[in-house]
Amino acid sequence: MAEEVKLFGMWASPFSRRIEVALKLKGIQYEYIEEDLSNKSPSLLKYNPVHKKIPVLLHNGKPVAESLVILEYIDETWKHNPILPADPYEKAMARFWAKFLDEKLWPAAKKVVVSKGEEPKEVIEEIQEHLKTLESELKEKKFSGGESLGFVDIAANIIFWLLVVQETLGLDILTEDKFPGLHEWYQRLADDAVFKECVPRERLLGAFKVRFGALTASK
Amino acid sequence: MAEEVKLFGMWASPFSRRIEVALKLKGIQYEYIEEDLSNKSPSLLKYNPVHKKIPVLLHNGKPVAESLVILEYIDETWKHNPILPADPYEKAMARFWAKFLDEKLWPAAKKVVVSKGEEPKEVIEEIQEHLKTLESELKEKKFSGGESLGFVDIAANIIFWLLVVQETLGLDILTEDKFPGLHEWYQRLADDAVFKECVPRERLLGAFKVRFGALTASK
Repeated sequence: MAEEVKLFGMWASPFSRRIEVALKLKGIQYEYIEEDLSNKSPSLLKYNPVHKKIPVLLHNGKPVAESLVILEYIDETWKHNPILPADPYEKAMARFWAKFLDEKLWPAAKKVVVSKGEEPKEVIEEIQEHLKTLESELKEKKFSGGESLGFVDIAANIIFWLLVVQETLGLDILTEDKFPGLHEWYQRLADDAVFKECVPRERLLGAFKVRFGALTASK
Repeated sequence: MAEEVKLFGMWASPFSRRIEVALKLKGIQYEYIEEDLSNKSPSLLKYNPVHKKIPVLLHNGKPVAESLVILEYIDETWKHNPILPADPYEKAMARFWAKFLDEKLWPAAKKVVVSKGEEPKEVIEEIQEHLKTLESELKEKKFSGGESLGFVDIAANIIFWLLVVQETLGLDILTEDKFPGLHEWYQRLADDAVFKECVPRERLLGAFKVRFGALTASK
C-alpha cells in the first residue's frame, strides 16, 4: 500500500513549518493542505478536536497533533536521517531545549507582537533573558547531533520569526554583538537549503509590515 | 561501576512523585533528596539552572529536568517494564495526552488553589471542560498500554491532587456521576500499590486544610 501523508498547516506558522522541515529532511512525499485559521476546515476540526490547531499530520488516515509530538512520530516512523540523537541522555537534552523554546522563548516573543509596535521594555528583557540562557548553553556544546539538522535546530525555527518581528518593528533584541553564539547558530540554519525553504522570511516581513502599519495608522 | 541515581524532589509535588512511580515500577534503587522550595539547595540550582525546579534526576552525575522528559529518559535508559508503548503512533498519543494534562488540566486546576477557597465558577467550568475531553477519550480506548501503568497513567497523577483540593474546599468538580469513565480510571490507579505509595493523600489533605483554613481565617 502506498503511504498517505498529509499535512494540515498554515504558511506563517513556525509550528507547521517545523513539520515540513522534518518531512523534507526525510524525503517523504506529502500533500500539504493550507488551513484558513479564521475559517477552519471540517477536516482540521475532525483530526484535532482537542486543540483545533495546526499542524496536524495525517498518516494513513491517523492524525497526530502538536508539533514536537509530530516530529518525534516522524523520526520513529521513518528512521533514516534521524532527527533525534540515539543516546538517551542526548535525546533528553534535545527534548528539554525544544520544550524550553516552546514554553519560554515563544510565549515571550509573542508578547512583542501583541504589544502593537510600542517598545515593550519588560518584554524585551524577558526575551533576552531566555536568549542568554540559550547563548550560554551554546557555549557548552552544539545543540544538534552533528552536521545535519536536529530536533532543537528544527524547533529553533521560531528564532527566525523573532528576527522578522524585530526587523519590522526596528527593535534590537537579538543582535550579533549581544548574542554571537546564537547569531552563528541561526546563520548556519539559514544557510541550510531545506531549512531556508521552510522559513518564508520575505512573505512574513510583508505580512508583519502590513499588520504593524495598520496598527500604527489606527492609533 | 554501580549506578548512581538521585532524585531531587518535594513530597507534595505531583511532578516529582511521577518520577518516583517510574523508578519504583522499574525497580531502580535511588537516593531521594527532599528539597525545601523556599530555600533551594545549591545542588538543585546547579543541576537545574534554567528552571530551578524539582524534579531533577541525577544519573551518574548527569542531570535531567522536566518530569515528562525524565520519564522518557528513564524508559529509554532502563528498558524493562516499559512505560511508553513501542508503537510510534501509540507513543505519539501517549505524549499528546501527557502534554494535555500538563498544559491544559494542571494550569486550570491550579487556579482553584489560587482562588483561595471562594467558589470560582469559571475556573470549575474550565477544569470540567478539560475533564470532559479526557472522559470522551477514555470511552474510545484505555490510555495505558495494557494491564501495567503507562506514561499517561503516571502523568495523570495530578488528578489525585485535584481530588484533594476538591475535598478540602467541598467542591463538586470531578465526581463519579459526572465523569464515570474518569472515576473508574483513577480508582484503578488508586488501587495500584506503586501508584498509591506515591500519592500522599492524607498528608496533602492535612496540608491543604491548614492552608485554606489559614486563608479563610485571615479574610
